[in-house]
Amino acid sequence: MLALVEPHIGGVLIMGHRGSGKSTAVRSLADLLPPLVKVKGCFYGCDPEAEGELCDDCLEKRGPRRVQREAGAVPVVDLPLGATEDRVCGTLDIERALSAGVAVFEPGLLAKANRGFLYIDEVNLLEDHLVDVLLDASASGRNIVEREGISISHPARFVLVGSGNPEEGELRPQLLDRFGLFVEIHTIADLDQRVEIVERRERFDRDPFAFNREWDAEQNRLREQITQATAILGGVSIDRAVTRKIAELCVALGVDGHRGELTIARAAKALAALEGRRRVTARDIRRVAPLALRHRLRKDPLQSSESASRIEHAIARIFPDSREGEYSEHGESGARLALIK
Amino acid sequence: MLALVEPHIGGVLIMGHRGSGKSTAVRSLADLLPPLVKVKGCFYGCDPEAEGELCDDCLEKRGPRRVQREAGAVPVVDLPLGATEDRVCGTLDIERALSAGVAVFEPGLLAKANRGFLYIDEVNLLEDHLVDVLLDASASGRNIVEREGISISHPARFVLVGSGNPEEGELRPQLLDRFGLFVEIHTIADLDQRVEIVERRERFDRDPFAFNREWDAEQNRLREQITQATAILGGVSIDRAVTRKIAELCVALGVDGHRGELTIARAAKALAALEGRRRVTARDIRRVAPLALRHRLRKDPLQSSESASRIEHAIARIFPDSREGEYSEHGESGARLALIK
Amino acid sequence: MLALVEPHIGGVLIMGHRGSGKSTAVRSLADLLPPLVKVKGCFYGCDPEAEGELCDDCLEKRGPRRVQREAGAVPVVDLPLGATEDRVCGTLDIERALSAGVAVFEPGLLAKANRGFLYIDEVNLLEDHLVDVLLDASASGRNIVEREGISISHPARFVLVGSGNPEEGELRPQLLDRFGLFVEIHTIADLDQRVEIVERRERFDRDPFAFNREWDAEQNRLREQITQATAILGGVSIDRAVTRKIAELCVALGVDGHRGELTIARAAKALAALEGRRRVTARDIRRVAPLALRHRLRKDPLQSSESASRIEHAIARIFPDSREGEYSEHGESGARLALIK
Amino acid sequence: MLALVEPHIGGVLIMGHRGSGKSTAVRSLADLLPPLVKVKGCFYGCDPEAEGELCDDCLEKRGPRRVQREAGAVPVVDLPLGATEDRVCGTLDIERALSAGVAVFEPGLLAKANRGFLYIDEVNLLEDHLVDVLLDASASGRNIVEREGISISHPARFVLVGSGNPEEGELRPQLLDRFGLFVEIHTIADLDQRVEIVERRERFDRDPFAFNREWDAEQNRLREQITQATAILGGVSIDRAVTRKIAELCVALGVDGHRGELTIARAAKALAALEGRRRVTARDIRRVAPLALRHRLRKDPLQSSESASRIEHAIARIFPDSREGEYSEHGESGARLALIK
Amino acid sequence: MLALVEPHIGGVLIMGHRGSGKSTAVRSLADLLPPLVKVKGCFYGCDPEAEGELCDDCLEKRGPRRVQREAGAVPVVDLPLGATEDRVCGTLDIERALSAGVAVFEPGLLAKANRGFLYIDEVNLLEDHLVDVLLDASASGRNIVEREGISISHPARFVLVGSGNPEEGELRPQLLDRFGLFVEIHTIADLDQRVEIVERRERFDRDPFAFNREWDAEQNRLREQITQATAILGGVSIDRAVTRKIAELCVALGVDGHRGELTIARAAKALAALEGRRRVTARDIRRVAPLALRHRLRKDPLQSSESASRIEHAIARIFPDSREGEYSEHGESGARLALIK
Amino acid sequence: MLALVEPHIGGVLIMGHRGSGKSTAVRSLADLLPPLVKVKGCFYGCDPEAEGELCDDCLEKRGPRRVQREAGAVPVVDLPLGATEDRVCGTLDIERALSAGVAVFEPGLLAKANRGFLYIDEVNLLEDHLVDVLLDASASGRNIVEREGISISHPARFVLVGSGNPEEGELRPQLLDRFGLFVEIHTIADLDQRVEIVERRERFDRDPFAFNREWDAEQNRLREQITQATAILGGVSIDRAVTRKIAELCVALGVDGHRGELTIARAAKALAALEGRRRVTARDIRRVAPLALRHRLRKDPLQSSESASRIEHAIARIFPDSREGEYSEHGESGARLALIK
Repeated sequence: MLALVEPHIGGVLIMGHRGSGKSTAVRSLADLLPPLVKVKGCFYGCDPEAEGELCDDCLEKRGPRRVQREAGAVPVVDLPLGATEDRVCGTLDIERALSAGVAVFEPGLLAKANRGFLYIDEVNLLEDHLVDVLLDASASGRNIVEREGISISHPARFVLVGSGNPEEGELRPQLLDRFGLFVEIHTIADLDQRVEIVERRERFDRDPFAFNREWDAEQNRLREQITQATAILGGVSIDRAVTRKIAELCVALGVDGHRGELTIARAAKALAALEGRRRVTARDIRRVAPLALRHRLRKDPLQSSESASRIEHAIARIFPDSREGEYSEHGESGARLALIK
Repeated sequence: MLALVEPHIGGVLIMGHRGSGKSTAVRSLADLLPPLVKVKGCFYGCDPEAEGELCDDCLEKRGPRRVQREAGAVPVVDLPLGATEDRVCGTLDIERALSAGVAVFEPGLLAKANRGFLYIDEVNLLEDHLVDVLLDASASGRNIVEREGISISHPARFVLVGSGNPEEGELRPQLLDRFGLFVEIHTIADLDQRVEIVERRERFDRDPFAFNREWDAEQNRLREQITQATAILGGVSIDRAVTRKIAELCVALGVDGHRGELTIARAAKALAALEGRRRVTARDIRRVAPLALRHRLRKDPLQSSESASRIEHAIARIFPDSREGEYSEHGESGARLALIK
Repeated sequence: MLALVEPHIGGVLIMGHRGSGKSTAVRSLADLLPPLVKVKGCFYGCDPEAEGELCDDCLEKRGPRRVQREAGAVPVVDLPLGATEDRVCGTLDIERALSAGVAVFEPGLLAKANRGFLYIDEVNLLEDHLVDVLLDASASGRNIVEREGISISHPARFVLVGSGNPEEGELRPQLLDRFGLFVEIHTIADLDQRVEIVERRERFDRDPFAFNREWDAEQNRLREQITQATAILGGVSIDRAVTRKIAELCVALGVDGHRGELTIARAAKALAALEGRRRVTARDIRRVAPLALRHRLRKDPLQSSESASRIEHAIARIFPDSREGEYSEHGESGARLALIK
Repeated sequence: MLALVEPHIGGVLIMGHRGSGKSTAVRSLADLLPPLVKVKGCFYGCDPEAEGELCDDCLEKRGPRRVQREAGAVPVVDLPLGATEDRVCGTLDIERALSAGVAVFEPGLLAKANRGFLYIDEVNLLEDHLVDVLLDASASGRNIVEREGISISHPARFVLVGSGNPEEGELRPQLLDRFGLFVEIHTIADLDQRVEIVERRERFDRDPFAFNREWDAEQNRLREQITQATAILGGVSIDRAVTRKIAELCVALGVDGHRGELTIARAAKALAALEGRRRVTARDIRRVAPLALRHRLRKDPLQSSESASRIEHAIARIFPDSREGEYSEHGESGARLALIK
Repeated sequence: MLALVEPHIGGVLIMGHRGSGKSTAVRSLADLLPPLVKVKGCFYGCDPEAEGELCDDCLEKRGPRRVQREAGAVPVVDLPLGATEDRVCGTLDIERALSAGVAVFEPGLLAKANRGFLYIDEVNLLEDHLVDVLLDASASGRNIVEREGISISHPARFVLVGSGNPEEGELRPQLLDRFGLFVEIHTIADLDQRVEIVERRERFDRDPFAFNREWDAEQNRLREQITQATAILGGVSIDRAVTRKIAELCVALGVDGHRGELTIARAAKALAALEGRRRVTARDIRRVAPLALRHRLRKDPLQSSESASRIEHAIARIFPDSREGEYSEHGESGARLALIK
Repeated sequence: MLALVEPHIGGVLIMGHRGSGKSTAVRSLADLLPPLVKVKGCFYGCDPEAEGELCDDCLEKRGPRRVQREAGAVPVVDLPLGATEDRVCGTLDIERALSAGVAVFEPGLLAKANRGFLYIDEVNLLEDHLVDVLLDASASGRNIVEREGISISHPARFVLVGSGNPEEGELRPQLLDRFGLFVEIHTIADLDQRVEIVERRERFDRDPFAFNREWDAEQNRLREQITQATAILGGVSIDRAVTRKIAELCVALGVDGHRGELTIARAAKALAALEGRRRVTARDIRRVAPLALRHRLRKDPLQSSESASRIEHAIARIFPDSREGEYSEHGESGARLALIK
């Protein structure tokens, strides 16, 4: 939800054992998102307000002024492990380009994902050359395809969502650092919740349509909350003292570079916005910092459970005052955000 | 038989030493299955009742209403180890697609296996890229083939049956988890039974037709039993107390994710249905749990014989009351299901 | 000779050091075999009596009734190590198939070997994908070639004969198990025999035609013996007590699966038939069991000389009464089968 | 800035942990550079003054006299890790060359980078064959593409800028030696500076245009400084006594070859020019020597922190007099060059 | 010279350090050989007397009777290490074969080498698939090329001559065994001989033609000796007592298989023939046995100098009487064959 | 210079650390060489005097008599590491050859290098298949290109010059032995010389044309010296006593084969010729022997500094009298050949 409200947070990495529902969770994202205003008929779903990021088609054929709008769903695109680079980046038909005189570009998954989410299941098994492609596109916000001197580029601004199993291979630190937040999912240990899961699934198997109707209201409420948070996010502020504490935390933990601080600041604002507040508190930092720092520690950060407690101790030392009463002050949405304790 | 009655159990993995009859057993499955009602002339054998899962042909060319029915055998498709991805997924003839204006799709083994079984002998030797393809299809129930911007998809809902030799390579945990049940076959140690096997084979070698006639009646009885179990499966219920015990068992064994519980619940219902009962008992759980959990334990679950006893102990502790008299209450079918003690 | 009389024994694997005459022995097989009755003009040499195994040509073009017969040699086909899959399985000319409307199939070595022998020298160096192809064909008795949706199948029922050098790589247990019998050839240590070999070779080098004439009579006698054994094989019986002892032996040695017992039974019958008897004796078992079991023991069975003595001890214990006088009761053919002591 | 003033220094290698702003720094280079005078319409941006380095087009089609001039930006070209050799070197369309009678050359990144900068992020992951291509071109100042007897060559004189993460693979010593200077960037540890970074980024995110305007003046000042330094560089001299000390330093450190001394001399002159002086002092040497020597020591020079202190000690011994008061004598530009202490 | 007289010896393997003149020696073979009578115009140089080994062309086009003869040189063909299989075996032009209706076969090096010598320098670096091809051809005396159902075969009966450096990789035992004789060449240690070599080379460099004339007579004499030996070889006999000793020697040394004995017998006969004798003596065996056995011992026979002494001791024990006076009884040719002491 | 005067010395291998000026030295070779008389218009630059080595064109098209002459530079050809075999050997356009009836051969680098020098920088990184190609051509003096039965050959007689860094991989002994001389270059340790190098380079950077003029005279003098040495080389003689000492030296050092002696003799003659003498002295041997033997010792000759001293000691022992006064008797050229002390 933080990444939905503030896409600049920059991607979420979800690690968890098989069967813990990682993919299911991500694939349901689309249903939580308010519709997007797009340039009508544009393949990349360009934002008619963002003149600087229009695709060539929008720019050349129609001119920014005469653009028509339409609403559409936020794309949530699946990147299958075995996808070819052509499929991810799109292909350029050189033969036809040469004979027809126009570059004939068949857009790929990056085009589809523009302004939305790109989901990679088992991200730790992704082939290196695809990792490179993704790093390039996610750093520049554009996808460039070049072949034999012809070059096509289009906007490819997406939130990267990856999920993986900690038992299967590691992630290149380079890629790890691109994810804003890191979430670890554990199998639920509570018996009642587990029974509930079995029974819900049983109800779904028996009558999927009835089951879905049951949950529509809940879904609408969440979508509403996100829409409102997005609207006020621009107005949320963060005191210099708090920013300083964030930096202090990162220094204390020896985090390389400055992406850690930036991500904490952004995520804390998104959290405040989700709870309807216009000011970031130290407690917000406490809640989002573990998500933003866990994968930025050195030395196999995902492997050692030590990492988690190092972060905890640093937080406890630097933000000593905000330890109790965490869930008391806000009802529903607090419970919903329980994960971000 | 459990997987025949309730395909949602999700595939069976059979491990056993060479020569223990794994392949023979699976290949004879087709003979036990009642015929299937299919859309007449549909390559994928679509179910005329399942509107949501019709293939494009059924949808577009004929419309769901005007569909004609026909009966056909449940497909049991063999996936040879060396099969190319094209052969498994089907191929798209781009040249002809472009010139003729229509996508010319040559369906593959996944198409053939729709609504039936896909059998992979020596599944632990399967190449990684095929494993990926199978995981994708078995998770989504559809097969998607894309080439140069043209995309074809068709229903591919099948029960995966794999067999392997524990001495030859391990299975990726990811793939392991996709199999609902895990069965280990041992060479029979009883001398009389071994003599019987040699003699039966000798009779078969001498006169296969006579031999087959001899066993026709038995086969018909089994088929009938499955048909009836399928009919009543929808009405089989399971008490919350029992579901809770299932969850307790999975927690006790530290099973990752929730597929363990779901599979136990489904398999127990199928077992009850096979025995003509409408209610799952703790004893059903005792009998199916080892099959559903053995391959879901951590740390090389297939290798260590320790796994089996860990499961046994957990069951004994959580289901203490149902230990004796297991085979007493039902005659024939009890013997038949002896494997599921 | 056992495999010639009873092809169901299922292949012979010959291991021995270089220069011990393995290949020479196998390649001379063809000369020992009585001619085969085939469908006239059929590429696969179909058996006109075996309606269930006719190739498509025999079935479609001529109908089983109108088939003409001809006699031909039993094929002994060499599979070179570097053979491509196309060469082994045959090729399907898709271009011509599509334009001419008929599948143009160019049969391969498997087609040639139908109803005969397929010989692989240095079988332990065979590439994995060819091993897969051979296992598939030898298990099903058919060869299936599929390309782009066109599928051709033809009968490919052959006896696999492999030879190898124990110093060069191991065999996949999977493949090992497919061979019915395992023979180890040692360099002859007897000086007189060695001198005889050098001199025979010298005589051959000097005048091959004269040399061959010299051995024609011997060869005819052997061929006659095989023909008669084949004729009475169907009438050879085996007592249940003996079968039980076979099973006991396999259990004692911990042989996986049931192929061990089946092979012993078949080989013992073939041995009885070769010696003109209609009843299998315990002594027959003693003589064939080592050939049928040696490669079915666990743990690198071909490497350890321990295997041989484990088998010997088990036999001695289970068949205690038949130890002496082995070669006394039958003259010529006993000497000839001395290898099978 | 040293490399901008004196491109003969020969490339800069920047090593630092992820997120330390390496790429951002390099990509902003272009903004600091004064415009370049180029031959109008020349793809390679030839220098109209450098007759000896004109491309074939400039030479043949127009003749050096009639060339027209135009101003253009100094190219800063990104070399993506996965780039093909064709993309880097350009491609030669043989088919068309043969039919049209003219060599049709599609220039690549090396052509684009002529007279500018070629930037390789993650240079330690660059594939070997590309490293070869770069070494060839950077040594000769020309790029040669040959295919089937047709040969095209064009000027490719560029400053190589590489950045990498010391944790990810090493650089071939061969390539290491091609970089004139070596810079190590560390994450800033000062809290106030870190807060400043977060806040600047926040201001940029909120209104990029306003933010950029704010820094325009600063940027202009730097550009001016570089332009002036370039102008006086030719007049900066270096005493033989100082040159001798440079050689002494290199001998003391056991640096292989002579590139070390040449680079120190050039960089010291550029530093003097940047600070408006016409004479190199011993202090200049002290400041640039570590940058020029660090990666030229033997035995994994980038890994051991020992290298840095060895250099420091050698400098202290050979240039004993210039230790204090380093930043006192020049104001602004001293602060700006603080990195080169 | 032994292999020239009796090609059935089966190939010579020459091992020696670089620069010891291995290749030079082999390449000069051709000059020692008397001309060959061939079928006129036959590519394979078929022997008009050997009806059973004529190529298809000789058989079909002309019929064995009407064949014309011509004399030609014995081919000595170089097999370069990097040769493709096509180049070695020949290629079959399928396209043209199909359109023209005739198989268009482009013969390769095996065809060229028929009835002559095939030389492989650095034979221990030969690629495995070429080794397979050579083993096949040298075992069968024919080369078979098959592609898409078309099969061409031609005679390819050649003496394999390999040379190698013992420091560079080992030979597959399989290949080792195919060489009849094994020769180890050492750098000459005698100073006068070395000076002679330098001076001879100097004379050659100064005037190659004069140098060659100088040695013509010597060469003619050798050629004559070989021609005469070839003529009487068929009449050379070997006593059974001697043959028995050969076998005894092989048993004593634990040589696998029977190729050792056959080779010793053949080489001893050739040696007798070269010296004009019609009877093999024990001394002949002593002289050729080391050449025939050295590479047939187990356990890295080429590496351990132990092998040589083991052979020596066995010979001394089994052939005790023929130790002295070896070179006394025959003048010139004895010196010439000094290598075969 | 020795190799320039006497190309039969057979190539020079230069090892030295990066930056020691290896490549620069080799690439300047061309400037030292007197022009070559070539057949006019011949691609391979055939020598009109060497009838036996004319290319096919020179032979067939023009006949040796009617050939026209022209003077040209000795080629110094660079072999880039990544060069394809086609580029090195030339390509044969089969399509056109077949249609036009003539073999269309596009010559490669070996053709260009005929009668000149072939330079390989980083020769220890050269791919194996290229090493094979070079060894073949340098051994035979011809390059043979064969494809699909068409065979082109042309003279390719060149002096191989390789340079490498001892830290990067070893050379195959096979290749090592092909180089006549081995030179090790060390970074200059003398401070004055190092200062001189920096200052020279500075002068060159400032005004390349002036700098080059400065050195033209020196260059001319060297060229003249080489021309004269080449002229008298044929008349230089070497006493048998000296030759014997050379052999003694090689035996003492255990050098394999005879290339060592031949190279010492040739290099000593070239050295005498360069100094205008017509007789080789023991001192000449002392000076060239280390260059000719260093890389011919066994056991990683390039790695161990022990090799150098072993050679030194052997020389001191065998040539005891010529130790002092080495540089006294000849002025200029002695200084110039100081390297060959």
